[in-house]
Amino acid sequence: MQSQEWIERNRKYTLTNGKSGFSIAFAGMKFSDADLDKMADKFDRAKREMARIEAGEIKNPDENRQVTHFSDRTVYPKSKEFKAVEKFAEDVRAGKISGQGGRFRSLIVNGIGGSALGPQLLQFAINGPYWNELKETDRNSNLKIYFLDNTDSAGFADVLAVIDPATTLVATVSKSGGTQETRNNMIALEDCYDDADVNFAKHAVAVTMEGSKLWKYAAENAWLKVFEMAESIGGRTSETSIVGHLPAALAAIDFKQFLDGAAFMDEWTRNEDYCVNPAYMLAAMWFIAGKGKGDRNMVIVPYSDRLILLSRYFQQLVMESLGKETDLDGKVVHQGLSVFGNKGGTDAHAFIQQLNDGRDDFFITFIEVLKDAMILPVDESSSMGTYLHGFQEGLSAALRGKGRQVISITIEEVSEYNLGMIIAMYERAVAVYAEFVNINAFHQPGVQAYKLAAQSILDLRQEFIGEMMKLGEFSGTAADFAAKADLSGKEVEIGGLLAKAALNCAVVSREYDAEKGWIYSIK
Amino acid sequence: MQSQEWIERNRKYTLTNGKSGFSIAFAGMKFSDADLDKMADKFDRAKREMARIEAGEIKNPDENRQVTHFSDRTVYPKSKEFKAVEKFAEDVRAGKISGQGGRFRSLIVNGIGGSALGPQLLQFAINGPYWNELKETDRNSNLKIYFLDNTDSAGFADVLAVIDPATTLVATVSKSGGTQETRNNMIALEDCYDDADVNFAKHAVAVTMEGSKLWKYAAENAWLKVFEMAESIGGRTSETSIVGHLPAALAAIDFKQFLDGAAFMDEWTRNEDYCVNPAYMLAAMWFIAGKGKGDRNMVIVPYSDRLILLSRYFQQLVMESLGKETDLDGKVVHQGLSVFGNKGGTDAHAFIQQLNDGRDDFFITFIEVLKDAMILPVDESSSMGTYLHGFQEGLSAALRGKGRQVISITIEEVSEYNLGMIIAMYERAVAVYAEFVNINAFHQPGVQAYKLAAQSILDLRQEFIGEMMKLGEFSGTAADFAAKADLSGKEVEIGGLLAKAALNCAVVSREYDAEKGWIYSIK
Repeated sequence: MQSQEWIERNRKYTLTNGKSGFSIAFAGMKFSDADLDKMADKFDRAKREMARIEAGEIKNPDENRQVTHFSDRTVYPKSKEFKAVEKFAEDVRAGKISGQGGRFRSLIVNGIGGSALGPQLLQFAINGPYWNELKETDRNSNLKIYFLDNTDSAGFADVLAVIDPATTLVATVSKSGGTQETRNNMIALEDCYDDADVNFAKHAVAVTMEGSKLWKYAAENAWLKVFEMAESIGGRTSETSIVGHLPAALAAIDFKQFLDGAAFMDEWTRNEDYCVNPAYMLAAMWFIAGKGKGDRNMVIVPYSDRLILLSRYFQQLVMESLGKETDLDGKVVHQGLSVFGNKGGTDAHAFIQQLNDGRDDFFITFIEVLKDAMILPVDESSSMGTYLHGFQEGLSAALRGKGRQVISITIEEVSEYNLGMIIAMYERAVAVYAEFVNINAFHQPGVQAYKLAAQSILDLRQEFIGEMMKLGEFSGTAADFAAKADLSGKEVEIGGLLAKAALNCAVVSREYDAEKGWIYSIK
Repeated sequence: MQSQEWIERNRKYTLTNGKSGFSIAFAGMKFSDADLDKMADKFDRAKREMARIEAGEIKNPDENRQVTHFSDRTVYPKSKEFKAVEKFAEDVRAGKISGQGGRFRSLIVNGIGGSALGPQLLQFAINGPYWNELKETDRNSNLKIYFLDNTDSAGFADVLAVIDPATTLVATVSKSGGTQETRNNMIALEDCYDDADVNFAKHAVAVTMEGSKLWKYAAENAWLKVFEMAESIGGRTSETSIVGHLPAALAAIDFKQFLDGAAFMDEWTRNEDYCVNPAYMLAAMWFIAGKGKGDRNMVIVPYSDRLILLSRYFQQLVMESLGKETDLDGKVVHQGLSVFGNKGGTDAHAFIQQLNDGRDDFFITFIEVLKDAMILPVDESSSMGTYLHGFQEGLSAALRGKGRQVISITIEEVSEYNLGMIIAMYERAVAVYAEFVNINAFHQPGVQAYKLAAQSILDLRQEFIGEMMKLGEFSGTAADFAAKADLSGKEVEIGGLLAKAALNCAVVSREYDAEKGWIYSIK
């Protein structure tokens, strides 16, 4: 592109908010005004449907629920729940609410998916990777933060090794209250607290829907506190709700600022003129680049160590929202938009080689943070930050020079407000894109088949254990075991169960036979 | 697939090593024996070329160097460098080598790309996320580990906030010794040590090629120690070399076991019968699934919290190796193979929705860890580990049920040996795949254009600063500044430089004007 054309394009397609210093530049994407004009009907539909969402109509028909995360950002801070969380955090910091061992020092956030990724993003971005290693005075009596975001005993053991139950608060977060992974961690924590002679209930709070299984359990067991979560907030868009608030408040993160940033972006992106609406333009870029089918991967590269989790957060938000089998008319469409990334400049020494030279199957989104945390001089006139800027601009130029496509977001600093803006912009872009391609962005039906299949493995295990109990001692291959249990069609699955048992269960062992494969023994 | 067919396919296409308990199952991929037969020439070529690599021929013609990472794994442990590293770590632990403030407590690994990602992977996998938070006795006097893997002052400030220079060892790792990001951190650290009245040289070691810029610098400044790195080891395959060894040894990781695992896999994957060679089969799966052009994303999902960095490690290894513009004959091919992932079961609550229902443009690789770190009972007969197994098997079945493609790797535990096996298998699969598609897997020419473009931004900045110095006080838009400096063609870049300066430099400020955009002022 000639430099004058490049300059004009940047002037035209950069959207800036002067107050916060936020800007987003689309000039590095391959599109023309004609491409945008062709989308007029799509923009109209998106505007209409976004208005319906914000008016509280049912926009998630499958789950028959409203979608309120866009509008709740100004409502929530005025609610009694908001005040309750702030008060709770204050009381914890002040030691008014304390554990069996005295003042609370640590918080375990027990949640998965949307209940973990948002809090992790915010915690890492605002407090950095070494928050837990800071002196308590440097944390101003705020809590160390740990996450249990899986059902892996190794992750559980890792947390257990560094906390003291008697000074550790546990926040169990599950909207439905029935999330199995979260329930598993809760049960395991209860046992560990019991083993340590610490009353779990007095160290436990819940964030869940009123009346949920978890709600009832917490009430019955007289937990320290139960915080209510609205039904109309989906997991992957719950970070601006109480789900994000509680862990943030306990770690000195200014959640009101975060909401203000999000609310400001909500207001900006309600603008009906798509040319000056960052979310509409962003969604249009995705649509044009991927031909409305996600034909290009979305690569997210923040030039900021603190924002390393942003790609993972967007991966969940975008892929869970847009990866759908059928459209709203029931037509099979297999939509989606794959997201990955890490951080720059680091990635220039990794996968960026492929983006430069290899498959042209992506568009990249840079996020630059203008303000340096420290001015660290490298030579007479350059600092570390100067280099980081140069590396990003250089990579952007090199990629564009090779015909690759680039979006550039700039923020002044990694603050709660700016993170709120970024998240709200992506949330709206996702909802708008879903209207462009006529899908429901707010459900996750694909998880159903997975849950059923997982349950059938767990059921098979029960059945198999039952058969084995009758059997007594026995040795043989998985095929032999399957035959014995009258489950021959399930040889592969039985093999998996036996392998798992052999490593974890004292009565099962295995040895490898070069001809027959694994020989399992039950004694 | 009918269950009998599924059983047969699993028997036939699962490769197992009985001693370590490692296995890899390809049955969930869509291929037939005929597809493999068609690749006979490709397998032959790969075997021939892999033999040439291991015989020490020049297999990276662009850089005119050997590629020795496959063969070095048995050589390195017998070398004096290996012993020197072990001895050094022992002396550090024993306090025989110490810092100005007494025994070393922490290590900063200053390196980027291959010099950071491998050590990060191993550290996280073997020692877990909270190693630094363990009591010193629980770490057995091994060092806390911090990484500077970028040129971001925020990441630098985060490390600085939690270390004491007087007890912190700095390992600067750069093969060429000229990596700018690493040099920046080194300079910044020197300054910080000076500010703290701590002699940097006595706390600094280098890992670099003999005679490199860094080598000379360390020698001239009488650094504590310089460790030599071989020229024939590429950055992204340097984890089994001294680059991986030094940080591992200082954190109680059994590096010899890691090398033994890699060497065992090297031996296994030298097998000329591709049907029983995991690396050849793996490469063939990638080739068939992506039609030799990387048409499917490689999704990596270890069901293990400790292995969360594996996808990022493979992303670097695969994409930097295989993302190439031209083949070995100079033909433009734009090859590549995109890699992303995170961890299971967590991801089932995130992007897995898209894999289940959305675009069928990927294949997924599961890594299961059989042994549970703790047995945490959930109900009468199930534990947390039972569920994790069930969730993985369930997801695998659900995906296959929807026609998606799955590879399943199983290891008994997250050990040094098993990690060595996995890494060596992927390294060889990458080299083999490169032969299939006739490219050089061992260079990274795409980085060159990026480096030049970055340099031109840094040069432009110098030129611009020079012009501004002449100017004195001035206010205007980026266009005004560019015109004033006679750099009108560079308005966009000048705008970027001014924005960066406005947030970091006391003499530059900016205000937003609704009509003109940013107005910058220099005083």
